[in-house]
Amino acid sequence: MQVTTYFHFCATYTPDFYTNNIRVKADLDGLGALGDIGWYCSRAILWANKYQLPETATAHRGAKMNSEGVITGCGATFVWKDGRVATFRCSFHSQMIMRLTVSGTNGVLDVDDFVIPRREDGASFQFFTDGAFEDMQTTFVHKIVTEEVKTSLPQEALMVHQLASLVRAIRSGSGKPDPKWPTITRKTQQMLNAVKTSVESGYATVFVRGGELAR
Amino acid sequence: MQVTTYFHFCATYTPDFYTNNIRVKADLDGLGALGDIGWYCSRAILWANKYQLPETATAHRGAKMNSEGVITGCGATFVWKDGRVATFRCSFHSQMIMRLTVSGTNGVLDVDDFVIPRREDGASFQFFTDGAFEDMQTTFVHKIVTEEVKTSLPQEALMVHQLASLVRAIRSGSGKPDPKWPTITRKTQQMLNAVKTSVESGYATVFVRGGELAR
Repeated sequence: MQVTTYFHFCATYTPDFYTNNIRVKADLDGLGALGDIGWYCSRAILWANKYQLPETATAHRGAKMNSEGVITGCGATFVWKDGRVATFRCSFHSQMIMRLTVSGTNGVLDVDDFVIPRREDGASFQFFTDGAFEDMQTTFVHKIVTEEVKTSLPQEALMVHQLASLVRAIRSGSGKPDPKWPTITRKTQQMLNAVKTSVESGYATVFVRGGELAR
Repeated sequence: MQVTTYFHFCATYTPDFYTNNIRVKADLDGLGALGDIGWYCSRAILWANKYQLPETATAHRGAKMNSEGVITGCGATFVWKDGRVATFRCSFHSQMIMRLTVSGTNGVLDVDDFVIPRREDGASFQFFTDGAFEDMQTTFVHKIVTEEVKTSLPQEALMVHQLASLVRAIRSGSGKPDPKWPTITRKTQQMLNAVKTSVESGYATVFVRGGELAR
């Protein structure tokens, strides 16, 4: 399985973004674009891989930094022990676009609004199967299914709902802390930390579970 | 500017593809998936960069090889001296999908059938501008323009037409060899050679104009 994902948005419309925004201050969000929007790419990659951590992270050459050395654009490749590969790219320097493409042997899942949806009441994804060249190979065909997922509330409200119901259950004694959220949050953070270490070490390959370099 | 492109198709439907197909024989197309379908990705990247060669190529970890050591899946990042970045991924192991996304500061060009079109009589691309979060940032909007390019003949026939008219002009003395085609073909080949060298050297960064490694 291979995952390709990117999330860009253009911060040049806000003149002092690169120097003053919280997202690019070394003593505030020191992970910059990686921490702000690379987070979503990494979480999506983790989701598509059943929340299994990759073994290694290697940042792609050509990362962009501001004058404080905070990342304003970067990309990376993650590799799992069994050969799965995922790549992402995040940037504050390009026109807004976001996409998640999960490619399996028999099907491809594709979403072009995987972070912030185009509509409040739902989102859709496409699923491609049965790709084949036609006739003299001058064209190709796919079976394309578009799935709509409806929601009664925006995802942000659902997140607050979820948090509130977990807290309520713990307070009333009817529930326990759900390990899912801290577990996947920590894994996402480990992936980002590995990418940052890779950028800072001249794009070396880094083990995601530890800081050491994998030569 | 950043380019992301991929082209996958699944060869597992043909049982002996990985061992017997011309595309994966070390003494026939020794470049494997890179030479067969990574070619289109690299040419598209070159096109989007006004046919300027990148300075370096670094293959992404996790390349796949068959028993003869021929690449059946790989990816790479190209970097230009002025900071432009492009990445691609090609694979014989996944359901067919192809995409070219060219991200500029103010607009994004996106094509999902950039190698073989979905229709013989034309192809379309989308151009995204004016991306912005709406209201409480629960949704985002784009200005999306879909451009249709019509063609009277399939692209393969147009290629033969072009070649025949160049040959006719040279034979009749009214034209000279057009340097465009050998130039961009050679540049594409240089990019592929650099990626192959990078894979074979353990994913080192390679100068595209020469075989030496860029540490």
